[in-house]
Amino acid sequence: MSVTRWKLTIEYDGLPFSGWQCQDHIISVQEVVEEAIRKFSQQDIRIHAAGRTDAGVHACGQVAHFDLDYGDRLITGYALSKAINAHLTGHAVSILTAEVVPDTFHARFSATNKLYTYRILNRPARPALDLGKVWHVKRPLNAVAMHEAAQVLTGYQDFTSFRATRCQAKTPMRSLDRADIVRTGDYIECHFEGRSFLHHQVRNMVGTLSMVGEGKWTKENVSAALAAKDRAKAGPTAPPDGLYLMRIDYA
Amino acid sequence: MSVTRWKLTIEYDGLPFSGWQCQDHIISVQEVVEEAIRKFSQQDIRIHAAGRTDAGVHACGQVAHFDLDYGDRLITGYALSKAINAHLTGHAVSILTAEVVPDTFHARFSATNKLYTYRILNRPARPALDLGKVWHVKRPLNAVAMHEAAQVLTGYQDFTSFRATRCQAKTPMRSLDRADIVRTGDYIECHFEGRSFLHHQVRNMVGTLSMVGEGKWTKENVSAALAAKDRAKAGPTAPPDGLYLMRIDYA
Repeated sequence: MSVTRWKLTIEYDGLPFSGWQCQDHIISVQEVVEEAIRKFSQQDIRIHAAGRTDAGVHACGQVAHFDLDYGDRLITGYALSKAINAHLTGHAVSILTAEVVPDTFHARFSATNKLYTYRILNRPARPALDLGKVWHVKRPLNAVAMHEAAQVLTGYQDFTSFRATRCQAKTPMRSLDRADIVRTGDYIECHFEGRSFLHHQVRNMVGTLSMVGEGKWTKENVSAALAAKDRAKAGPTAPPDGLYLMRIDYA
Repeated sequence: MSVTRWKLTIEYDGLPFSGWQCQDHIISVQEVVEEAIRKFSQQDIRIHAAGRTDAGVHACGQVAHFDLDYGDRLITGYALSKAINAHLTGHAVSILTAEVVPDTFHARFSATNKLYTYRILNRPARPALDLGKVWHVKRPLNAVAMHEAAQVLTGYQDFTSFRATRCQAKTPMRSLDRADIVRTGDYIECHFEGRSFLHHQVRNMVGTLSMVGEGKWTKENVSAALAAKDRAKAGPTAPPDGLYLMRIDYA
């Protein structure tokens, strides 16, 4: 008998799910993956993710771990991911890789860095190809001004103004190591990196920066909102549609 | 009474449609757009597209024209596209722009250049986020070899080996002005430009080039397939999922 800890890298479309975790009566990504592992392994497995994405939020590189007792049988990472994917048919979830990791590895607590990308479609016409995959903003946004204002948010700061009121983290202190806002044609991509993020932090930062993009706010207003340590002083929460958990790094 | 010729630039997701034109009992993009124009104008309008995309083929920049008798009323392009889009809700179709053009403008015959992009997702795991939007190829493809072989196809050539057997064009002669195959991570994008293309030409070229990417064929095989002027001598037809009509240029 030997128990192996596996690390999965997972891609999913957030649209059909309640998010990573179960909420109400809508199916969650976690349930779907656990059920697929159960079907192939005949074991009741619990998986632990690096970040609990909200309903509608997408992932290109979510990471989760779980322990599998597969007896004396050997299984490669490729075979394992293939076996799980075979039971995920019909769901917008795909296991990209499966790797054996030490017992000390924890998807959430071992993470040293996360990259989130937020995509905005900035044009008058609504999206046909990217429906549910972008935040559609009709009014022209100044991405250069948004990028400059985003620099105010970098560093080790108290992000109380940018956390959801129901956020359960013990401290509002977080280190935002990168905030890059880049326009390519009608698309604006907002890249944020840091060890961890508060609940709704990225969406609240994007909502606030969009006010700068519209010319309603300056970077001084963003600075003041941050200093206020009051959620009501920052901008709105951007919708989940544009948010992608891109990559999680481990030491 | 005055009749105005309008040029529409249209984005759509090919997945839910039978293609641009009606086929069998599945709804077509053309029907959906004509119905939306009818609803707002109360007129029975026929629209003419630059290229009749097949079922499952997407467009970021399809162009179509139509004549509208709107009496003495003036309407801006922005207002027209907004009015049509209002009647397209629920469909994966969006009018990007509407412009007044001279009566001599014809979406198909006035076109001087078209850009098609074909997207391949090249990794073992199936797509979750890009389902129906890429061709998923599990076997590793050499994009550099594909690009080199693609150069064999450029220039004014007889594309009999790359046209659908049911293609109705009078001549198999076409000028392929650009064929660029570029890899970015797990994605391979194939860009093709020319004044016009034969039925299935892009998908047949991509299917053939994928054989080069897999190492089964060399560029000499592609050259021989072209010279054979026989559809049976070239590679398979790549699926519609990865094909995008990106842009159409007019003089």
